[in-house]
Amino acid sequence: MYLKQAFELVKMTAGQTGRNPAVGCIIVKNGVIIGIGAHLKEGTAHAEVQAIKMAGDATDATLYCTLEPCNHTGKTPPCTEAIIQAGITKVVFAVRDTSLDDTGIRYMESHGIEVIHAPDSAISAFYEAFFTSKEEKRPYVTLKLASTLDGKLADDFDNSKWLTNTASRQDVHRLRHSQDAVLVGRKTYEIDKPKLDARHVSDKEPAKVIISQSGDVTLHEADRMNGQRILVISPAEIPHAETLITQDFRPAHLLELLYQAGISRLMIEGGSGVISEFIEQDCFDEVVIYYAPKLLGGTLNNRFYHTEESRMTQLRLVDIQQFEDDVRLTYRKGQ
Amino acid sequence: MYLKQAFELVKMTAGQTGRNPAVGCIIVKNGVIIGIGAHLKEGTAHAEVQAIKMAGDATDATLYCTLEPCNHTGKTPPCTEAIIQAGITKVVFAVRDTSLDDTGIRYMESHGIEVIHAPDSAISAFYEAFFTSKEEKRPYVTLKLASTLDGKLADDFDNSKWLTNTASRQDVHRLRHSQDAVLVGRKTYEIDKPKLDARHVSDKEPAKVIISQSGDVTLHEADRMNGQRILVISPAEIPHAETLITQDFRPAHLLELLYQAGISRLMIEGGSGVISEFIEQDCFDEVVIYYAPKLLGGTLNNRFYHTEESRMTQLRLVDIQQFEDDVRLTYRKGQ
Repeated sequence: MYLKQAFELVKMTAGQTGRNPAVGCIIVKNGVIIGIGAHLKEGTAHAEVQAIKMAGDATDATLYCTLEPCNHTGKTPPCTEAIIQAGITKVVFAVRDTSLDDTGIRYMESHGIEVIHAPDSAISAFYEAFFTSKEEKRPYVTLKLASTLDGKLADDFDNSKWLTNTASRQDVHRLRHSQDAVLVGRKTYEIDKPKLDARHVSDKEPAKVIISQSGDVTLHEADRMNGQRILVISPAEIPHAETLITQDFRPAHLLELLYQAGISRLMIEGGSGVISEFIEQDCFDEVVIYYAPKLLGGTLNNRFYHTEESRMTQLRLVDIQQFEDDVRLTYRKGQ
Repeated sequence: MYLKQAFELVKMTAGQTGRNPAVGCIIVKNGVIIGIGAHLKEGTAHAEVQAIKMAGDATDATLYCTLEPCNHTGKTPPCTEAIIQAGITKVVFAVRDTSLDDTGIRYMESHGIEVIHAPDSAISAFYEAFFTSKEEKRPYVTLKLASTLDGKLADDFDNSKWLTNTASRQDVHRLRHSQDAVLVGRKTYEIDKPKLDARHVSDKEPAKVIISQSGDVTLHEADRMNGQRILVISPAEIPHAETLITQDFRPAHLLELLYQAGISRLMIEGGSGVISEFIEQDCFDEVVIYYAPKLLGGTLNNRFYHTEESRMTQLRLVDIQQFEDDVRLTYRKGQ
């Protein structure tokens, strides 16, 4: 139960912790919660440290944490040390941090702390993105598509606004809320004026990433004004935006640059050229497709996946959600 | 409860009653079922008549029937007359037969029978196909597609066998079992050698319909041997098959011919040219798409809906089913 509560804290803070994982922590003593903590932002105190601080006296208490407490000194001191100092006698965590060595558990145990690993599939699924990102030093990539049943993102006149319904679009805002950044190609950015925001969910906006191989992009007035983070990947400096300058536009390299810029969860929203290239180059982890209940036919410019020849990519289905007549299907890579 | 049991009889016999609806009937007296009937085949006794026959003495009994009893003399005498003769005092039915005038109810009531209409949404949904077919004098048309997520029925080398999984293919057999006929284009028939059977479900096979505008088709050995009904729509007589000769291959006309040949539930299974034409000409009622968890890209010959320009067809989602990593989405026409 306390782990589930700690996971609620994770859901609240997902998308604001950069390359660090969102972590939730609850300290309980005699059946009463005496401390609550969540990691809020890269570089600031970890969840465990915050919860201990709130508790004041945590002697003989039990600490529940979504992720295994760290044992290393990074931007902040190790959590294991803080736990030992606080006099906590029992630690329950849901997910092993495979990116750490396991000396933290032994270190706590050597100080008489009982350490229990209580696996939880929902919490594990959440951290999959973090581990991928940390191990591969690139963002965890979600491809987001709003498509007709026959695989078109827009009609022959580039109209796409009408495709999915309000309930689906609100769900997109929820998805964006948990991302560090959303990415689009320059043409999609300039023509579609995609809002790419999460306004129906919160004021917290993901950064916008625009790919401009031409070295040019016309930023929308609103984007320059609202103080949101705008990243442009381009061969030349772009005024009014944070520019990641490169000549190498291969998807794998773009992801490297974005990770260095602090992006660990990235959602790619179009256009079809960008989407196709990330699929072909195998540079994605997850595909979320909103199918509008429509058949479109027509010419082929706006089909969402175009390649020179058939290139089969095998996925596995991880979720089905219905939004009125729209269906959201979520897939991850691999058999 | 008895209506649900009667509906079970309908499910058993769907797909074998031609242009007539499958109907189930249960007669109950003093809490005991004394008669069970189902309409088995066009031209033979109706469900009510069969149930009355089984009951022998049905005096003062209650008759439960999925569809309103008929009051007209067609190939068999009216059911209302049989009900009155049997001394039944109460009739409960689930679905009004809008293709009949309503004198049947009044006729039974005038003979002191209590008649109750007890609507049931699942039973109503089943009869939608029958009413469409009867009113429009054409088969109720289901388009069946097994597609990649990006709308391809096969790769650039026409391979499609690998697309959906075993569980999905078994479900296709269940779908076929409830159809009078399945239709494919000549090329699909000759090249893909589609089995088009329902062998995982039963020995009862839907008729096969092949469209051959060229007036030629090479029937597979097995099809000529197993005594199954093979219909070819063609400008010239085809040996070893029942030929519907025509020069007019517009979808609406083909449906007219098939209805005259006794087909009231038709499933169209490909190829993409046939599928596209039936969508464009608005000659379908239902679309069932099995999405395999695959992205394919490639050239465009095997996309399932191709037209000269975008032609938006709006559907409404009526069902979602999961078969392991495949998803079956069912749509009907209209907002």
